[in-house]
Amino acid sequence: MIARQDHPAGQMLADPNRPSFPLNAWYAAAWDVDVKHELFARTICNKKIVMYRRSDGVVAALEDACWHRLVPLSLGRLDGDEVVCGYHGLAYNSQGRCTHMPSQETINPSACVRSYPVVEKHRYIWLWMGDPALADPALVPDLHWNHDPEWAGDGKTIHVKCDYRLVLDNLMDLTHETFVHGSSIGDRSVAEAPFQTTFSDRTATVTRWMRDITPPPFWAGQLGKPGKVDRWQIINFEAPCTIAIDVGVAPTGTGAPEGDRSQGVNGFVLNTITPETDTTCHYFWAFCRNYRIGEQRITHQLREGVTGIFHEDEIVLEAQQRAIDANPGRVFYNINIDSGALWARRLIDRMIDAERPQQKQAAE
Amino acid sequence: MIARQDHPAGQMLADPNRPSFPLNAWYAAAWDVDVKHELFARTICNKKIVMYRRSDGVVAALEDACWHRLVPLSLGRLDGDEVVCGYHGLAYNSQGRCTHMPSQETINPSACVRSYPVVEKHRYIWLWMGDPALADPALVPDLHWNHDPEWAGDGKTIHVKCDYRLVLDNLMDLTHETFVHGSSIGDRSVAEAPFQTTFSDRTATVTRWMRDITPPPFWAGQLGKPGKVDRWQIINFEAPCTIAIDVGVAPTGTGAPEGDRSQGVNGFVLNTITPETDTTCHYFWAFCRNYRIGEQRITHQLREGVTGIFHEDEIVLEAQQRAIDANPGRVFYNINIDSGALWARRLIDRMIDAERPQQKQAAE
Amino acid sequence: MIARQDHPAGQMLADPNRPSFPLNAWYAAAWDVDVKHELFARTICNKKIVMYRRSDGVVAALEDACWHRLVPLSLGRLDGDEVVCGYHGLAYNSQGRCTHMPSQETINPSACVRSYPVVEKHRYIWLWMGDPALADPALVPDLHWNHDPEWAGDGKTIHVKCDYRLVLDNLMDLTHETFVHGSSIGDRSVAEAPFQTTFSDRTATVTRWMRDITPPPFWAGQLGKPGKVDRWQIINFEAPCTIAIDVGVAPTGTGAPEGDRSQGVNGFVLNTITPETDTTCHYFWAFCRNYRIGEQRITHQLREGVTGIFHEDEIVLEAQQRAIDANPGRVFYNINIDSGALWARRLIDRMIDAERPQQKQAAE
Repeated sequence: MIARQDHPAGQMLADPNRPSFPLNAWYAAAWDVDVKHELFARTICNKKIVMYRRSDGVVAALEDACWHRLVPLSLGRLDGDEVVCGYHGLAYNSQGRCTHMPSQETINPSACVRSYPVVEKHRYIWLWMGDPALADPALVPDLHWNHDPEWAGDGKTIHVKCDYRLVLDNLMDLTHETFVHGSSIGDRSVAEAPFQTTFSDRTATVTRWMRDITPPPFWAGQLGKPGKVDRWQIINFEAPCTIAIDVGVAPTGTGAPEGDRSQGVNGFVLNTITPETDTTCHYFWAFCRNYRIGEQRITHQLREGVTGIFHEDEIVLEAQQRAIDANPGRVFYNINIDSGALWARRLIDRMIDAERPQQKQAAE
Repeated sequence: MIARQDHPAGQMLADPNRPSFPLNAWYAAAWDVDVKHELFARTICNKKIVMYRRSDGVVAALEDACWHRLVPLSLGRLDGDEVVCGYHGLAYNSQGRCTHMPSQETINPSACVRSYPVVEKHRYIWLWMGDPALADPALVPDLHWNHDPEWAGDGKTIHVKCDYRLVLDNLMDLTHETFVHGSSIGDRSVAEAPFQTTFSDRTATVTRWMRDITPPPFWAGQLGKPGKVDRWQIINFEAPCTIAIDVGVAPTGTGAPEGDRSQGVNGFVLNTITPETDTTCHYFWAFCRNYRIGEQRITHQLREGVTGIFHEDEIVLEAQQRAIDANPGRVFYNINIDSGALWARRLIDRMIDAERPQQKQAAE
Repeated sequence: MIARQDHPAGQMLADPNRPSFPLNAWYAAAWDVDVKHELFARTICNKKIVMYRRSDGVVAALEDACWHRLVPLSLGRLDGDEVVCGYHGLAYNSQGRCTHMPSQETINPSACVRSYPVVEKHRYIWLWMGDPALADPALVPDLHWNHDPEWAGDGKTIHVKCDYRLVLDNLMDLTHETFVHGSSIGDRSVAEAPFQTTFSDRTATVTRWMRDITPPPFWAGQLGKPGKVDRWQIINFEAPCTIAIDVGVAPTGTGAPEGDRSQGVNGFVLNTITPETDTTCHYFWAFCRNYRIGEQRITHQLREGVTGIFHEDEIVLEAQQRAIDANPGRVFYNINIDSGALWARRLIDRMIDAERPQQKQAAE
């Protein structure tokens, strides 16, 4: 962390001339279990992709359009580890090279479809949508709680009809819990608590401590002890689209704000939101916890509880996207609570501009 | 009435550069009973509006988009007489001024949403969509029959997927009854009867008398007397979009054409058609009568009868709109029966041009 | 046949500045039995048409939009052999001339709707969409098998959401049978057999003989004799959009390749594909045979069998159209099997260019 700024002011415009997402980034395309030895089609960053798991377990991701006549390869079938087009039988290997054409011996050497770098990590299949030479697996965002044996949890995928950045805005400011989720996890204390925003080159963090409060019903139940608590929400953004939220409570006076969380309970809300198109996204989330990790019943309850809460957000986010579409010239006004979202968007814009040489120059 | 012209000739083009409706006018947005102490969303003249009735009974109408992030306020809730946004809890009073922001003490002085002048009259909620300084309640169109104790009646709201002016065209020429409504109120005598068209600055009137005819079944039933009748249809247009049609029959020879309707029965078909968008509209109608006004059974029968008849128009009007959309360059040809519609459109165009100074000049 | 070229190379672009179909051609608009003494609406080559059979049996085809206010005439009714508009009662005769207007004695002499030349032939109603002076009935494509007493068969109409030329591409290369129809008529032998392509000014032909092969189950059943066969597929294209495919098998050694098909069985797959819009079409097909022509059971089985097979094509073709729409700049790459389709498209383009004088010049 190298700097701090609490309340950036002014209006936030999504510049219509700037792409809405960078390409040189790893994007979660699916949960690991979703991709089997069969063709699986999904649009990622405006590109139609067909994925499948090869016999050796490695996942392949190809452009979902036959070189010959554009028919989606996902309408075809797998023959071993090759994809056979369902129209004229052109076959492609997992690197996208055409290996068979009907009624001819020789194959046009240019015949291929684009293949995308793939990494499987933290229970997701990640695709690199930009320059393959830059596809460094070390850049996959940190969501290790998803497979850490000291944490237990599970999650789901939501398809949301909005710009992925609206989901980020939503997660970077949790005061909305009070209003959107008033009937479940919301609580006046969140909207009233002070917070700070910090950032680095690729990350932004919003930290909020609510000290010596009566815990909301959800956390009281998780803690299983009576009395007041210190509650924390630490929102960790990693550009362009991953947010791990460190949440929990500990009995007041047991030292959580100073770093000793041993008497409390701790969860992580893991979120990575992948653009499907400019105005739709795939939202992959999970909730992991470090207590009673052997109790599958709690994993189930938490997953289903979060499902219901996120559905409340989905309704608001899709209405917001429709309002943006209906008001093309309108700006967003910002208030104090937006500082985290503003930093997230700034870091995304820097990644995008870094891919556009002339823009980079202009910004310098 | 200051002039008369029976058959304006030529082609009627909806000028694609001219807006399709004036803004400086009262538009019916809802029936009085539709607006309660809860949030009610409707699009009027391309603007998304949220309406509600305050505790003191006065109706408020605000822009349905939060100043902060554009989320529709209608997704939020009322807190007393204030609207609270369902996303981050910004609150607005009934004038649209922001009165609360989350996590901060001071409120940005520019934080507000647009509010619209409202008048409740003749059983409708009327909104003024243009310059509030010009919103004179005396300009609300005359539909007093809707609440006059000497008249009884009721009506409904229809959402029609067509330019509101196509509904006006339809009502300004009742010869279509013969063809569209041949199985109900239509009758050759309407298409064959002569008519005259008169107009003033803001009104146009089409008058048709069918003398000494056998009444169609509907009117024979309403009159309840045997024998021939004099039948009238007097279509009163008030710009930009209200039409009160004076209809009835009286036994031939009892003096109705000369002004004595005492032996006849009289109804008013009240219509006010509010643009929702350029190609959809809210059509508010009622049928009021001055005979057997205590019989609720007749009110019910007439309302349901008219509902069925207007549904026949709806099918034609929506097909006409689709044909217009599919033939962007095509003109309408006019025949004698179109003189009333032509005057209505001319008066609307004058109102629109009066709001566009440069156009007004060009026309002079 | 005046020339031969086996494998035209390169990329096939549908030029976005060239119309997608010629107008000076006969297009099948309906099966003969579909058009009765009632109004029948269909869009042909982007034009909305209303058809009906007059009392004397002759079919009329008019523009489906009233001269007065554009309302579709197909929403009206027939009065004898005249069409009466369902809105204001304007009447038109079968040549499109207005014969009645409401509330006036004289009729505007320009009042008419466009009428289209019609020919009824080979069980279809054919419309000429271009210059009526060029509408020579001798130019109707040859589909005589449909009513030849030595052939029996039947067919259906499919509405496909794709450019009609994608259906032509599909039919001009039957190797797709192997991949799209692998579970029914497909067979490796088709994709592996050599073929030749020939053409003339208005026709292109792809001929494929598979000699001394084990017949696929369908043809073994039709032939009803054991043993190997010579199988043929001769695809006859007639510009712009008719394809008659001569198919069959005969026992090996009985002389079919040399011209004696007397020991075999022969069918014709008749196809004529009419543009509805630039990206949708009406596909009229039939299957006729010259054996066991009195057995209605076989006619029924073949018609239903082909229905299922063509549904497999429909899925691929509509996916292909969606992929084309989503990739506006993309070209089609061509391989050997595409030579027939390339010739079909070249002949269509020549017809289109012949209707555009400046383009014709440029091409010469």
